[in-house]
Amino acid sequence: MRYALGVEYDGGGFLGWQRLSKPGSDDESTVQSVLERALSFVANAPVETVCAGRTDAGVHAQCQVVHFDSGARRDPRGWMLGATSRLPASVCVRWCQPVADDFHARFSARARRYRYAILNRAVRPALGRQYLSWERLPLDADAMHRAAQSLLGEHDFSAFRTVHCQAPHARRNLQAIAVRRDGEQVIVTVQANAFLHHMVRNIVGSLLLVGRGEQPEDWMAQLLAGRDRTVAGPTAPPDGLVFVSPLYPPQWRLPAEVTLGADHTAPSL
Amino acid sequence: MRYALGVEYDGGGFLGWQRLSKPGSDDESTVQSVLERALSFVANAPVETVCAGRTDAGVHAQCQVVHFDSGARRDPRGWMLGATSRLPASVCVRWCQPVADDFHARFSARARRYRYAILNRAVRPALGRQYLSWERLPLDADAMHRAAQSLLGEHDFSAFRTVHCQAPHARRNLQAIAVRRDGEQVIVTVQANAFLHHMVRNIVGSLLLVGRGEQPEDWMAQLLAGRDRTVAGPTAPPDGLVFVSPLYPPQWRLPAEVTLGADHTAPSL
Repeated sequence: MRYALGVEYDGGGFLGWQRLSKPGSDDESTVQSVLERALSFVANAPVETVCAGRTDAGVHAQCQVVHFDSGARRDPRGWMLGATSRLPASVCVRWCQPVADDFHARFSARARRYRYAILNRAVRPALGRQYLSWERLPLDADAMHRAAQSLLGEHDFSAFRTVHCQAPHARRNLQAIAVRRDGEQVIVTVQANAFLHHMVRNIVGSLLLVGRGEQPEDWMAQLLAGRDRTVAGPTAPPDGLVFVSPLYPPQWRLPAEVTLGADHTAPSL
Repeated sequence: MRYALGVEYDGGGFLGWQRLSKPGSDDESTVQSVLERALSFVANAPVETVCAGRTDAGVHAQCQVVHFDSGARRDPRGWMLGATSRLPASVCVRWCQPVADDFHARFSARARRYRYAILNRAVRPALGRQYLSWERLPLDADAMHRAAQSLLGEHDFSAFRTVHCQAPHARRNLQAIAVRRDGEQVIVTVQANAFLHHMVRNIVGSLLLVGRGEQPEDWMAQLLAGRDRTVAGPTAPPDGLVFVSPLYPPQWRLPAEVTLGADHTAPSL
């Protein structure tokens, strides 16, 4: 039997999603390892998981989606509450649903969404600091928004790809990106079919240069066309980054928060 | 010279605002003690502070206001950045302003605002858990809102006052209270001229019984009239509570976030 899970986590205490040790070890350094240990306890048998999008060290998730196979007979609520009770306070299972055997958390996803939050004021954050990055110089969020629109569509995103990225090619379809100010915060939301390693943080790092007025608005288009990582902005820190969720076609009948509209368009950012 | 400061803190690691040891000690258990130590370092002389509203263990502040006197000549930005650089990550100074000698952070305040956030779903919070309390049973936020309106105005709030409260009387003027749902969260915002010890958490604890349907909407009015703490709901946990700010008359020329309108009315909740 195959199950899909929605998993929420505070990535601040983890080295990232991906397990670095063998399945079943006592390693508590990654989200995957603590989740698999909790699921294995509930199943009373080893469980391995596949996720929609691996997150880096320090990156959070509002609704990561994973799938796993198990012969153990538990109802969805039993998986959800049982696993959550065995997880550290920084991780929980939001929902569990049985899925068809050909559902794949990674390959069935048609889009992913991320949100990046920047506190923009003279003084570093105290309240909510676990979920914010910080920029002390005033940012022009409207200029950042306009500059970001040049990234829309299918492009080679090599300019925003870390050298450690293992993807076979750098073409991605960026479906939506928005930058808006909310009081002292500047929020970047972005949706693509898939992302390269560090792609969101590298886009944000370059947008910050535009927001501070150190680069013109058309610089983002130039960076994209140049495909040269070395001339783009620095990688923004992980604290402000949340993997909002992957999005799946409605055929899988997953919860609304991870489902594309019936016409295969995503809800607006 | 007297200064006013806006102070933001994550109360999770503190025993509360109020210093429990002598001024100048190395105690890091309270917000007041770490703030006074940081200010004393900047002043190069002992500094003692008075705050607008003492918060309990685990309660956060978006903009606590304090005043202090110092003969040290520092510009406001120097106090703000200097003190913040000596504070733990969970505390920062948002702003500093010189004020008239008769300004008093506590006695000059005409109102205080608090916000209480409840995550209302089957599973405990992971992301943002530092700033949320949790209720697993479905809450009727509209019923809670209606019930809360019976608390408006000047009343004896003995029903919502802890036995440890040291205030000479229990009359307070509750100026506004609102309960609204925002996705999975239920948010309570409340403003009064002043609050009794545990008053917000006791009001929220009783509203939760109404929200779960265990008490009728007119129960809040009955509790208030009865003045009997022992029949009201339990004290809600501190995690979800934020002291938003005190509010001062415009004559003190403090930042807008802590200033009443020119007609002495507060901005809407």
